[in-house]
Amino acid sequence: MRDDSFMAWDRAFARRAERMRASEIRELLKLLDQPEIISFAGGIPDPALFPAEAVREAYDAVLNDPALGPQALQYSVSEGYRPLRSWIAGYMARRGVICDVENIVITSGSQQGLDLLGKLLLSAGDTALVTAPTYLGALQAFNPYEPRYGIINPMDNRSPAAIAREAVGSRIALAYVVPDFANPTGETLDEGARLRLLEMAEALDIPLIEDAAYEALRFGGKPERSCLSLDLERSGNIDRCRTVYCGTFSKTIAPGLRVGWICASRSLVQKVVLAKQAADLHSSTINQIVMHRLAASIFDAQVGKITPVYARRRDAMLAALERHMPPGVTWTRPMGGLFVWLTLPAGLDGADLLEQSLSEERVAFVPGGAFFADGSGKNSLRLNYSLQSEATIEEGVRRLGHLLGRVQGALPRNGG
Amino acid sequence: MRDDSFMAWDRAFARRAERMRASEIRELLKLLDQPEIISFAGGIPDPALFPAEAVREAYDAVLNDPALGPQALQYSVSEGYRPLRSWIAGYMARRGVICDVENIVITSGSQQGLDLLGKLLLSAGDTALVTAPTYLGALQAFNPYEPRYGIINPMDNRSPAAIAREAVGSRIALAYVVPDFANPTGETLDEGARLRLLEMAEALDIPLIEDAAYEALRFGGKPERSCLSLDLERSGNIDRCRTVYCGTFSKTIAPGLRVGWICASRSLVQKVVLAKQAADLHSSTINQIVMHRLAASIFDAQVGKITPVYARRRDAMLAALERHMPPGVTWTRPMGGLFVWLTLPAGLDGADLLEQSLSEERVAFVPGGAFFADGSGKNSLRLNYSLQSEATIEEGVRRLGHLLGRVQGALPRNGG
Repeated sequence: MRDDSFMAWDRAFARRAERMRASEIRELLKLLDQPEIISFAGGIPDPALFPAEAVREAYDAVLNDPALGPQALQYSVSEGYRPLRSWIAGYMARRGVICDVENIVITSGSQQGLDLLGKLLLSAGDTALVTAPTYLGALQAFNPYEPRYGIINPMDNRSPAAIAREAVGSRIALAYVVPDFANPTGETLDEGARLRLLEMAEALDIPLIEDAAYEALRFGGKPERSCLSLDLERSGNIDRCRTVYCGTFSKTIAPGLRVGWICASRSLVQKVVLAKQAADLHSSTINQIVMHRLAASIFDAQVGKITPVYARRRDAMLAALERHMPPGVTWTRPMGGLFVWLTLPAGLDGADLLEQSLSEERVAFVPGGAFFADGSGKNSLRLNYSLQSEATIEEGVRRLGHLLGRVQGALPRNGG
Repeated sequence: MRDDSFMAWDRAFARRAERMRASEIRELLKLLDQPEIISFAGGIPDPALFPAEAVREAYDAVLNDPALGPQALQYSVSEGYRPLRSWIAGYMARRGVICDVENIVITSGSQQGLDLLGKLLLSAGDTALVTAPTYLGALQAFNPYEPRYGIINPMDNRSPAAIAREAVGSRIALAYVVPDFANPTGETLDEGARLRLLEMAEALDIPLIEDAAYEALRFGGKPERSCLSLDLERSGNIDRCRTVYCGTFSKTIAPGLRVGWICASRSLVQKVVLAKQAADLHSSTINQIVMHRLAASIFDAQVGKITPVYARRRDAMLAALERHMPPGVTWTRPMGGLFVWLTLPAGLDGADLLEQSLSEERVAFVPGGAFFADGSGKNSLRLNYSLQSEATIEEGVRRLGHLLGRVQGALPRNGG
């Protein structure tokens, strides 16, 4: 009897947990430990580039400071460490977003920002507008709140009315985009696309979540203006902006400290602070104080140190793709960030290919299907270049090219 | 036009955010900065007792270690740092809970454990069973998932069938208790009450959330067995237990690192790991590695250092209450933890009293009403003794006693 009832209880929430199924990315990360595997599966910074010495000095200085030391180990306010929020407000201002410390709340990475925004903005059955593909972690953050997904393409000219019609009976609650060097495609939206997104959000009267995780990792060229800065130009006041900017130090300084932020209107920030308090009281006090020291002292130098390294690896990957990919395979040419996105001939499935790639070529990547809320995109895959040397990138892409050549040769003609 | 639509959008989620209204506790914490205020409002450890030197050494050792240093700054797995999980499994075993590392997931404080459990277990309209009063942070963690609350009293003999009847049409989804030195009452459940809770959870076929935040802060006497250890004795296997134990290092080592854990059946822990991944990927890597060093080296010594200090402050508070409280006021006599709970004569309102106390006596506390899910308990208040010296406790309670004497004298007789 007890077994049965216990199982019933277990089933009851298995149903709920299903919607948060294990991230294929995280599962794949486990492969990194296997010898001989060349992994393009990660989405993480190169640990050799972490500012290790500066981090050590910062923890030491904070813990040796008679005032900051005890403060760093104590509970703190949910909105975050004020000097860090203030530094971030200055950083945002340098990027065209004139705002106040009250427009900033610290989150545990930008991932937590997405979770808190999902909690505040989504009710079961609401529609969240996303691109296809989009960041898998955003889908995972939103899924527990049981939205439907609507697909938007910032490059097309579909009218907001058409988008609203497709939502049929569901309240459209938010739109989510990664405008710079997107995960997974590496693509960047131009100003026209950003303005169209803003106009759509305005016409639908919804918040626009701008995930800026990779924004600082630009390899050259003129930075695009953020959606929030364009919004601010139109509305004239940060507190009347509908764009919600999610930033992070994970790609620039180090992800292990878990420090990110949201910059938005004061009224939204106040609500995020309440959701944050309910979720985990506050982000680690000591890490926030340390991150403030690091940001204030080495942020620009650190970005200046890592971007040329990632740029050379991007170059190596694009050159290797040019050399080794068979006809019919296409890819993006990112101006920053960590990823190149491959589109395979129709009929190929990235997930099947991964199995083959691991066993026959010892090369790992992320199958593209995981990034599509609508179940499409199976003939695509994501390659990361931030973790491997240029020589290893050449070798891994060469092997992958061989595999694709073999597989493609075996494909029936005309998709038959 | 734009104004109107923007305001409509704003109102739409103001409605949702209302259910997460600002914590009265957090608001009150702001008073701690005012001079001359004697605050019994906090619920936080004394920063003078933090193991500052050991913490400094631990960060230094981790960041100087050629393998651990870069690992500490990198992304890590959602379930947490394995050596820390393994240390916690050993700690749980010492407390009668034989379990495996797979039964442990690291959370950002026990507060995040409550949020993730709410997310997994509660659907809108479900009933969460809580005591009255209960931990305010648990209500805040659960509120976004829109439960109703049912009140349980582990000391009474109400049958599970009666509890189920009261839920009228709502699915009972979980029960939540703080069995040791509860926040806010300071009270501890005896083994009989714990067994009745387990039997109730079994009869209702629901998980029992055991918030053990204060468990290690025992001032003397024989420790009670945890609900999870009693559950394990009955079920014979941790993976068939329905008790979900939430632990934390916040009250023993330091809250600023945000490291807690959940210990439960493997199947529940796996689901929490997925929810954790969606919520913030993982807790701070460096803080987990540092906390492992601290736990393994100083945990018992640190608990041995802080409990006698808190015990003397508890003694000072109980003695002062005895001396200064007017007749009609009663209070708890905690065997551990951070709080004493006062019950005032009916007709007095703790929230009104706080205003008066701040202006006339410069003493702060938390009005009890905030801790009741059912809106009752207004004639109660929570006093914290962990942050003040024994002399300050005597002075603060003396002032509070004077105020209560005055106020009570002005009360109409027979509650008229």
